[in-house]
Amino acid sequence: MQDLDVNDITDAVIAQMATTPDPRLRQIMEAAVRHLHAFAREVELTPDEWLKGIAFLTAVGQMCSPVRQEFILLSDVLGLSRLVNVMHDSTGREAAGTETSLLGPFFREQAPEIALGESIARVSSGPEIVLYGQVKDAAGKGVGGAWVDVWQTDADGLYDLQAHSPDVMDMRARLRCDAEGRFQFRTLKPLGYSIPMDGPVGELVRRQARHGFRPAHIHILVAAPGYRELVTALYFGDDAHVDSDTVFGVSKSLVVTAQDNLPDAPVPGMPSVRYDFTLSRETEGGGGRVGSDPSKLVPASG
Amino acid sequence: MQDLDVNDITDAVIAQMATTPDPRLRQIMEAAVRHLHAFAREVELTPDEWLKGIAFLTAVGQMCSPVRQEFILLSDVLGLSRLVNVMHDSTGREAAGTETSLLGPFFREQAPEIALGESIARVSSGPEIVLYGQVKDAAGKGVGGAWVDVWQTDADGLYDLQAHSPDVMDMRARLRCDAEGRFQFRTLKPLGYSIPMDGPVGELVRRQARHGFRPAHIHILVAAPGYRELVTALYFGDDAHVDSDTVFGVSKSLVVTAQDNLPDAPVPGMPSVRYDFTLSRETEGGGGRVGSDPSKLVPASG
Repeated sequence: MQDLDVNDITDAVIAQMATTPDPRLRQIMEAAVRHLHAFAREVELTPDEWLKGIAFLTAVGQMCSPVRQEFILLSDVLGLSRLVNVMHDSTGREAAGTETSLLGPFFREQAPEIALGESIARVSSGPEIVLYGQVKDAAGKGVGGAWVDVWQTDADGLYDLQAHSPDVMDMRARLRCDAEGRFQFRTLKPLGYSIPMDGPVGELVRRQARHGFRPAHIHILVAAPGYRELVTALYFGDDAHVDSDTVFGVSKSLVVTAQDNLPDAPVPGMPSVRYDFTLSRETEGGGGRVGSDPSKLVPASG
Repeated sequence: MQDLDVNDITDAVIAQMATTPDPRLRQIMEAAVRHLHAFAREVELTPDEWLKGIAFLTAVGQMCSPVRQEFILLSDVLGLSRLVNVMHDSTGREAAGTETSLLGPFFREQAPEIALGESIARVSSGPEIVLYGQVKDAAGKGVGGAWVDVWQTDADGLYDLQAHSPDVMDMRARLRCDAEGRFQFRTLKPLGYSIPMDGPVGELVRRQARHGFRPAHIHILVAAPGYRELVTALYFGDDAHVDSDTVFGVSKSLVVTAQDNLPDAPVPGMPSVRYDFTLSRETEGGGGRVGSDPSKLVPASG
């Protein structure tokens, strides 16, 4: 037995974890322990503060439910989600495609399927816009039959999970591109919104005097066999918070404006956004699904 | 708006958090973000792995209840709890006192009060031992009237919270030292035990091929007005895991052996452990309560 000082402890933990059979788990946990301990040493974390941290993480976990993923929200406001996205974009695919953005906590699988040209608004109402464009490969060729998932807030800035009971799906849909990869759908112009402020993450953001707002955006997930799944979002450039997204999701290349007189607009006279998405083929080992359904992380209870 | 690379993101997050009014919260969160991002960059965390991490932390939070603190357990098996303890020991008090050890997840406030010499075993039975000694100040003078909280497993290696319904308090007690700081109580010889392996932390420890055992020990919390609260534990040197505690709690100075013929043993013929605890006065700003009740972190639900 050795008596441990503040540096020995890190070595002792890593030594005890060295038996981990899976080399990737061993690598991740060793790095996690080194960085966690370095953090605690740097700030000289006190027992009081440690307990506050335990209480905070516990509250984050307890806030999670099939309709609320507070840990993803925490990852988002700390910029970790964006960092993981950017690293993912830069590896494991043949060519740069459309930039990705955050999945966020409101994606749901099995959204209602709609035909091209239909509206994703089933319950909500408000000023309509059209979003249309083409899904292409890195060479610019249309990807016929690609699936597009879209989800967004209603005109009041609320997702269906916030505005309605969990069995209602609204302001989200799946649609299938035509043989040339073209898609179009009608929707409501989304409103920017505050992240959920009634939980521990909201309390943290408030204590940091951050505004807590995301600029108005439309989430998009594009999938086609043989290509890396694209999880991204389009941000409206006229939103006051487009430069200060509280979850760091905005990239210049994803900022759009609804325009009145686009020459190829499918619904003449209706404000329209044209955006083409570029998919990239996965290289070997480049992958895994990005757009998993956060609601599956917590089993529904009675 | 700037387009963010993997290093810019960290700066952008820190810039957005710079409005935090409380300077200590600002410092802690800035360091947390820097180390969290450095970890993710170092291991090149993939979206799949990120989601597994989110699922793991969510499961840890959901496992917490008034009788189970899985985040403290996680902190324990990662060595963070020990690190925080060691840093706390080395600061903010006049003189080195007895070494501290982990509070652990099984401390409960308002344990039954017993008189000196009584047993803390109310329900459980097994071979008895006596623990006795004196609470002293740094100069070696007895601290009259100090309160001692003691809690431990029964002879089967289970805490009351694991062996009985939550309303039963067993193998724990509070007692008050006499005017010279002397204390004595009877108890059962505790058994070493595995940390709870039925939750996400147990699953991690299993995947790391760690044995998951703690050596047999008795938790002690000593409190007296004007002194830093002492949270420690005594470890039995004849336990097979005394050199490989899965939560890194053991220090040489806290290892004891029950002996048969101590000259001042209060119960002749009964195996006895004598241990004197040294309290130290807090220096200014040195403090805060260490021994908070983890059960209070999660409200009881019906």
